[in-house]
Amino acid sequence: MADAARNLRELLSRFTDQWQPMAIAAVNDYEVKLAKVQGDFIWHQHDDTDELFLVIDGTLTISLPGRDVELRAGELYVVPRGVQHCPRAQDEAAILLIEPKGTVNTGEAAGPRTTTVLQLD
Amino acid sequence: MADAARNLRELLSRFTDQWQPMAIAAVNDYEVKLAKVQGDFIWHQHDDTDELFLVIDGTLTISLPGRDVELRAGELYVVPRGVQHCPRAQDEAAILLIEPKGTVNTGEAAGPRTTTVLQLD
Repeated sequence: MADAARNLRELLSRFTDQWQPMAIAAVNDYEVKLAKVQGDFIWHQHDDTDELFLVIDGTLTISLPGRDVELRAGELYVVPRGVQHCPRAQDEAAILLIEPKGTVNTGEAAGPRTTTVLQLD
Repeated sequence: MADAARNLRELLSRFTDQWQPMAIAAVNDYEVKLAKVQGDFIWHQHDDTDELFLVIDGTLTISLPGRDVELRAGELYVVPRGVQHCPRAQDEAAILLIEPKGTVNTGEAAGPRTTTVLQLD
C-alpha cells in the first residue's frame, strides 16, 4: 500500500461496481476500504472481529436483529463481532470500512456475494 | 463504548479544547478518536504502530522528514510506524484518528503535550 494521501471522493469517482470493496490504506494489520453500495446485501456476521462503517455519501441502513441503524454522510457505526447484520441502501451510498485484513465481506455466511477486496496499488 | 451511531460533526461541536482527543468508538483493540487542532503539535513518532489521520473539516499538514503531506476535508493519510511527524494546522481543523488503544498522542517524545484520551461514554 503506497505511502500517499488518499482523497476519498476522488477515489470513489473511479468505482463502477457496487458492493466491490477496494483497500485504499492500511493501519498495521487493518485495512481501510471503500465501497459503493445499493440495494440489500445479505445477513451475515463476523465471529472474530468488529466492523466499522463510516458513510461518505448517501444513507446506509444496517439492519440488526430487532432494529435498524440508519447512517447518513458523516456518521459511523461499529457492528460488534458476532452480531448478525445486513447492510442496505435504497439509493447508492458510498461507505468506508475498517476491519482486519482478510475479513471476508460475507463473514460466516459466505455464498455468491463473497468478493475479493481490490487493492488500490 | 456504547453501541450507537456516531455523528462526527455533532460530536465535534461539543469540543472546546484543541489537541484533546476523545475516543468515540472502538474496533476490537483499536480506538477511533476525534480532535480539534490548531497550530503546531510536536515532532514525535510511534515505534509500534501506524497512525491514521482523516480530516473532517479544515486542512491539516503533517510534516515528515523532508516533506509535508497536506490533507483537506475528506482526505486521509497513514503515518507509518517509526516515522517522525509533526501535525500542524494554520486554522482550526477537525480530524479523526485510528490507532491501537493506549497509543500516546506524543509517542516516544512524551513531554508536556502528552494527554489522556477522553472517552465519550
